[in-house]
Amino acid sequence: MSVGVVTPQILNFAEPLSLQSGASIANYDLVVETYGQLNPAKDNAVLICHALNASHHVAGVSATDPESIGWWDNMVGPGKPVDTNHFFVIGVNNLGSCFGSTGPMSINPATQKPYGASFPVVTVEDWVNAQARVADHFGIKKFAAVMGGSLGGMQAMAWGMMYPDRVANCVVVASTPKLSAQNIAFNEVARSAILSDPDFHGGDYYAHNVKPRRGLRVARMIGHITYLSDDDMAEKFGRELKRADGDSDAYNFSFDVEFEVESYLRYQGEKFADYFDANTYLLITRALDYFDPAKAHRNNLSQAMADVSAKFLVVSFSTDWRFAPERSREIVKALLDNKLDVTYAEIDAPHGHDAFLLEDPRYHNLVAAYFEQISRGLQS
Amino acid sequence: MSVGVVTPQILNFAEPLSLQSGASIANYDLVVETYGQLNPAKDNAVLICHALNASHHVAGVSATDPESIGWWDNMVGPGKPVDTNHFFVIGVNNLGSCFGSTGPMSINPATQKPYGASFPVVTVEDWVNAQARVADHFGIKKFAAVMGGSLGGMQAMAWGMMYPDRVANCVVVASTPKLSAQNIAFNEVARSAILSDPDFHGGDYYAHNVKPRRGLRVARMIGHITYLSDDDMAEKFGRELKRADGDSDAYNFSFDVEFEVESYLRYQGEKFADYFDANTYLLITRALDYFDPAKAHRNNLSQAMADVSAKFLVVSFSTDWRFAPERSREIVKALLDNKLDVTYAEIDAPHGHDAFLLEDPRYHNLVAAYFEQISRGLQS
Repeated sequence: MSVGVVTPQILNFAEPLSLQSGASIANYDLVVETYGQLNPAKDNAVLICHALNASHHVAGVSATDPESIGWWDNMVGPGKPVDTNHFFVIGVNNLGSCFGSTGPMSINPATQKPYGASFPVVTVEDWVNAQARVADHFGIKKFAAVMGGSLGGMQAMAWGMMYPDRVANCVVVASTPKLSAQNIAFNEVARSAILSDPDFHGGDYYAHNVKPRRGLRVARMIGHITYLSDDDMAEKFGRELKRADGDSDAYNFSFDVEFEVESYLRYQGEKFADYFDANTYLLITRALDYFDPAKAHRNNLSQAMADVSAKFLVVSFSTDWRFAPERSREIVKALLDNKLDVTYAEIDAPHGHDAFLLEDPRYHNLVAAYFEQISRGLQS
Repeated sequence: MSVGVVTPQILNFAEPLSLQSGASIANYDLVVETYGQLNPAKDNAVLICHALNASHHVAGVSATDPESIGWWDNMVGPGKPVDTNHFFVIGVNNLGSCFGSTGPMSINPATQKPYGASFPVVTVEDWVNAQARVADHFGIKKFAAVMGGSLGGMQAMAWGMMYPDRVANCVVVASTPKLSAQNIAFNEVARSAILSDPDFHGGDYYAHNVKPRRGLRVARMIGHITYLSDDDMAEKFGRELKRADGDSDAYNFSFDVEFEVESYLRYQGEKFADYFDANTYLLITRALDYFDPAKAHRNNLSQAMADVSAKFLVVSFSTDWRFAPERSREIVKALLDNKLDVTYAEIDAPHGHDAFLLEDPRYHNLVAAYFEQISRGLQS
């Protein structure tokens, strides 16, 4: 079942938030959606953290757009793995994003113009600090769980390290304790495409009434390749030509769309350029690059995890080459080094990194079982 | 030892060449370099085919530029695996390339303007037909070997299928019988970056005295990621920050170069934009996409290889994720299905696809041994 029609709330935070860069941001908004009921003990709250291009709209159908289904609707809802009959679930749009929370498109109160390029660089740790204030707003002292996939998993991990008293369970799906050189390289190419787009105007394209669509398209196309497995692309597209049914299978000998996979990527690129903000893309990919909790501990992740007290569920997918299972095993090892309670599963799934968003019975049954266990331990 | 100082020759072909697309091209030039001596029996000739961004300049030092060493100088020369004391080696720049052979930058005799976007789409098979005329020019009835890596390996393979009487050995390194959906996808993103660059001007940028540098940069950056293995990038760059020695290891919190890997990619992108032609990039990536000799045989590669009579040496590299060893094994299987003489080696090398260009003792010893065997069978 679905949580049904949902309406976001805008939370305003007047007090300045100090950022890792040394900058601070005052009087900012965060958009949230909530599903289910907070129990009297306020110990049944689950925070869902989003990855690159998602938002607070985790589950249900948007009140203003019946086409807009939450991005993790298969995971969160009544009777679903994160069961809203038992849990109070919060979806939050992060600072710097482009779905209603304060970000580069927002008006900077100091200048009365959009922040644009002047929006401060934000990090996973900054987001977690901002999310802690969301918890305060709801009177939640300790989350039953903080959960996310990919970049969202980094936030869940960071919660365990930064707020050990405020989170009972961290659910980290298809994630990594830090990006590899190859991961950073893909981000850099995507950023280069945006930064070099003449319509970028140094980040202040809002004033020019344009957006760097070419850069966004290329960025998204690169992203899509890394989200899917090689086998999955072969299965979905192979070398099929983009043709009306019954048409010739001869080549066109041109640089127009020739193969199905080209058509798919161009479509995804166009769609993304329609709805996403380029400055947000830069910010969020940089937050990915920078995440490296072991850095301050001489690259020793086990030391970085020394204060963690939460239980962890860590899930990886066999064909995910963006954040491969071995990256999850680094997290698991660091937790075990600290004698923490960790459940780890490597799900054999063909869909690459995207698998964390898809409905796979083994994956969903595992998450459901984990949350049932949490539910049984709640006070009320 | 090196072949020393080398000077290219320009061969002109007046007779029109029919292309796979149905178009034809007349009065075209191909630039070649040769090393070693053609023996009286003319049976010691080896053709070296280049991949995406290389040229006829395979070995030695350019007579006009002492900095310009041939791209396979470690492979071809006196006492090297392809030993120019025994073999007459030809390097040829393919049609459509940008290093002197007729291509999009050349003047179209029909219009007296650069071909630009009007240069016909060329295929691996077209190149092989053009190379056969180069053989005719030198009076070579049958090559002792045709050899290439990556796209060059596709040409070697196509020689075996298209001219079974004119090649005794095909040496196919780090190649594939066809691109996968993922391979095509990476090409498509690179092409999109070029096609959408405002300086591309529909391919006729020469008239505007500009070149689509932004697109070329992004294309090359993507390429470089796919040429290196994940481990190799980790080894070379890790998460090292780009800093002067002794400087802080704190982040800069910006979108400028922050990590070493970003600096490397930007440098490679700039360098490529200096020397490469964007229309050539489009043409050559499309030739890669289109290569699929099994297509005309109901996707049965063994049937496509039915007329092959050459012996094959097939080499792959363990960490090559662009054209992984399993792709080479498809070639080997098709050859074995036809009871052909094939030597196959999977070299355990850390350098990804780029390994085919690097000096690895196991790889080079294997090629050397293979060519010694060929040499022993020559008539004179």
